[in-house]
Order: sequence, then C-alpha cells, then structure tokens
Amino acid sequence: MFFAPASITCFFTPEFGKSHAETGSYGVGITLDKGVRAKPADRLIFNGEEIDFPTVKYVLNALKGKGVEIEADFPLGCGFGISGASALATAFVVAEEKHLSMPYYRLADLAHEAEVVNRTGLGDVVCQIHGGVVARLKPGCPSKADVEKFLWKLKLDVVVIGPLSTRDILESAKFSIGKECLKEFMRKPSVENLFIQSKRFAVETGLAEDVMDVIEAVESCGGMASMVMLGNAVFALNGYEALKEFGKPIRVGISSCGVKALDF
Amino acid sequence: MFFAPASITCFFTPEFGKSHAETGSYGVGITLDKGVRAKPADRLIFNGEEIDFPTVKYVLNALKGKGVEIEADFPLGCGFGISGASALATAFVVAEEKHLSMPYYRLADLAHEAEVVNRTGLGDVVCQIHGGVVARLKPGCPSKADVEKFLWKLKLDVVVIGPLSTRDILESAKFSIGKECLKEFMRKPSVENLFIQSKRFAVETGLAEDVMDVIEAVESCGGMASMVMLGNAVFALNGYEALKEFGKPIRVGISSCGVKALDF
Repeated sequence: MFFAPASITCFFTPEFGKSHAETGSYGVGITLDKGVRAKPADRLIFNGEEIDFPTVKYVLNALKGKGVEIEADFPLGCGFGISGASALATAFVVAEEKHLSMPYYRLADLAHEAEVVNRTGLGDVVCQIHGGVVARLKPGCPSKADVEKFLWKLKLDVVVIGPLSTRDILESAKFSIGKECLKEFMRKPSVENLFIQSKRFAVETGLAEDVMDVIEAVESCGGMASMVMLGNAVFALNGYEALKEFGKPIRVGISSCGVKALDF
Repeated sequence: MFFAPASITCFFTPEFGKSHAETGSYGVGITLDKGVRAKPADRLIFNGEEIDFPTVKYVLNALKGKGVEIEADFPLGCGFGISGASALATAFVVAEEKHLSMPYYRLADLAHEAEVVNRTGLGDVVCQIHGGVVARLKPGCPSKADVEKFLWKLKLDVVVIGPLSTRDILESAKFSIGKECLKEFMRKPSVENLFIQSKRFAVETGLAEDVMDVIEAVESCGGMASMVMLGNAVFALNGYEALKEFGKPIRVGISSCGVKALDF
C-alpha cells in the first residue's frame, strides 16, 4: 500500500509548454496529512465503487496495470488534488506489483502527465511528491520543476461547499496574477503572507465570489482564510468555529512528506 | 521538535569542488526510519550530555542559535549519518525558534556545509532530506545535487561493531570505484543489485576487511549484507539471526520521508 498526500493550491499560473513535461504551473500548494491510500486490485475502485477515472486509467494503461483500489479522505473535484494523489499512489502500487524498478521521479512524471493529458491538474503532483508548503518556482513535470518548500507546523481547517470543474476553469479564467503572488510570497515567506497572497489571488481572479462570505466570516473572528484552488472550498487558520456555519470543517495538518510506502 | 532520519551509505565517490556547495559525493544511501529528534535548548545537548559537536555548533553559529537538545537513535561515528542528521534537525529547530522563514533547501545546504567544513560527511544530508533509497547522481549541496530515489518496502538489520573516523578515511582511501557501482546500480535498480554493488565497493576499497566475517555469516544463512560506509558496522537483509553472533542487531525500516516537523 502507498499513501499520497492531498494538497491545496493557494495560487497558481498555468504554463502550457511544448510537451507534457514542460507543462505545469507556478504557484504555492500545501501538502496535507490526509490524502489517498492505494493497493493492488483487479479493477479500478475508488472509495468502494467502480468509477470512471481517466487520470488513474492513464497510469494503469501506461504501466499495464489491471486495477487499483483507492481510499480517499476527500471527494474528487473539490480542490484537494485527489486526482493527482490517486494517479501518484497508483503509479507506485503498480510499479511495485509488477517489479518495474522505476524510480520516484519517473513515477511522479507519469502521474503528472496523466493529469496534464486529462486536464485534472497542472501542479498538484509536483506539490504532493515533496511534502510541506511547496513553492513551484519553475513549472514542469516533477523531474524538471524547480521547487522550494517550508515545513511549517500548522493545523488548518477546510470546509467543502461543493464541486467545481478544474477543466472548465483552466480554459476560461486568467491566472497571470499567480506568478506575482508567488514572487511576493517568496520575498517574505511567512504563514501570514501566504494567506495574504492566497486571498489576493482568489479575489483578483474573481474566483472567490461564491465563498467571499465564508472567508469574511473567518476573518471577522480573527482568523485567516482563502479559497482552495480550484474547488468550491475554503481553507482557514484559526477558523474552525466560523467555518461551522457553512459546513462540517475538517481539521488537517501539513504533511512533511511526499509519497509514503505503508504496511511493511 | 524536528526529526531528521539517520542514513546508511552503501557506496560513494567523494567530489571536492571549488566551494562547499560544489563539494559532495556520488553514491547511494538508505534513509532510515530511526534518526534524531531535536528541540530548542540553551546549550548543545546530545543524548543527555553536553558534548563537543563542531558540526552542530557550526549550524548554531550560522543561525545565531544558543543551543539544541538532540536525542539520537544511533551513536556518533558509526556510519549512520548522525552528524548530518543532527546538523539538519538543528537548522530547522533554530530557524523555527527564531522565525527565520528560511526554506527547506537553504537549511539543508547549511547542514551540508557544516558537514563539509568539519569533514564529517559528504552526502548524508543530501540523502536525508529526500527519504527512501537515494542515488546521488550529481554531487553537491542539497539545492544543487541531482538525485533519484526508490521507495522500497524493506526491513534491514544493522549491527554496530565499533566506531571509525570518517575524517581519517576520507583522506586516505581511494573511492573512485563508487561511481562505477552507482552506474551499475542505476542500470538495474533492484534490492539485490544494491547489495551486490555495496559489497563490491566494500571489498574493492579494502574497507570491508574487518567485517568480512560478519557479511559472510549473513550470506551463509541465505541473506545479503554489506558494510555501512563509513562505520565499523554491517547492514543486512534477512540477516537478523546471523548478526546476533556479532552484537545486538537493530531492526530498521526505510523512511519514505526527509526531515519531519513533529509535535504540532
């Protein structure tokens, strides 16, 4: 069994290169201590059900795997990078099952490619293989991207309001501001500044409209919050009580680790 | 509190560059699930005692830290990279304590520099910040080194026979064979081949002389073993029973992770 962490994207700017390997994003993501656990199976099972999951299927096809059983702590399509984490954990499960002796970054590159091809993510996998709060300074697949990261001891609260399609938004919105937020964040990499830049991105792209009341509720109680990119969800620091009004908050820690081998 | 994993070097070739950042080693190391835990303190304490520990002192001086309390699972000087792990964990502890907002690779580079200056290690820190079985394909400090890694599910047994001075050996022996072992390992990256190349290195450098009987005892029981570089110690797969004759074996797992933030 392998674990791959879920992640929250705070802000980003997509980069569409000539190849899948050159496609990715600038931005900052937070790796969580919740995520997905995957083990070998005959079919593709996600949280107990057979589902159509093209991103994971892409990995299975590439490695000639029959199936995988995935148990996820968050639903798909809510901005927690579950498609990337599922692709990633699947790659490790099949590589081990089939004794492929493929190294970490090659498996990670494959999961990234699966995301790019299926337009389910552009930077989640890069974040998820490192752990911590990950700044993607140069976009691309995991073996080519440049990152820096921070191991901050934080508990965050997240609340999911509903799903949002990454694919539609990636094609319509303008995200150039993400690169500016990244630059400002790296100039002063602190928790406070991470929230400031995250909210700035959410507001200036116009994406935060539907969750602005949630963010403001947290702020009026003295906490900090922003929108999970890309999900109809909010992440907050010191916001548990305020979030309760909008759904059931889930408390998460920041994971120090990327993919983990379990049960050995 | 921060955790930094201990590590075993299987084989290596030192590279002395023009700067600390260009100095490091080629080779393969195994990151362990045991290591050091460090927390803020007024003095430098290692396993309950005030000791002279120049590598850690170097980090404290660089970050203007007063002290650190380190609890280590292995003794110093036996080949488990405890000096590197201690320097690494210390850097994270002081950076957090003093709100330095320094990122992961900068702290790791500092720990590497502390090792290079004090000649206590050339590649341990690079291995320890990644987790897994780490191949150092291009030497240098953590932010410049090129690595690939493997998340293998293995339990190993190690037995410590006595200390060995890294400093003396680094200056006397010839290690060019390490690069060849690395090339052969990457050609076929498997557990078996890792032991084959490790033993080849240990034998061809002449270092294994004193522990050859231990390695052979493991092999005659159907296991695989080689010498911990650089320590008067042996690591083995399926070797617990055979090792018991030579000391008290310690069972270790491979860590998937690098430095971890604890207690939050």
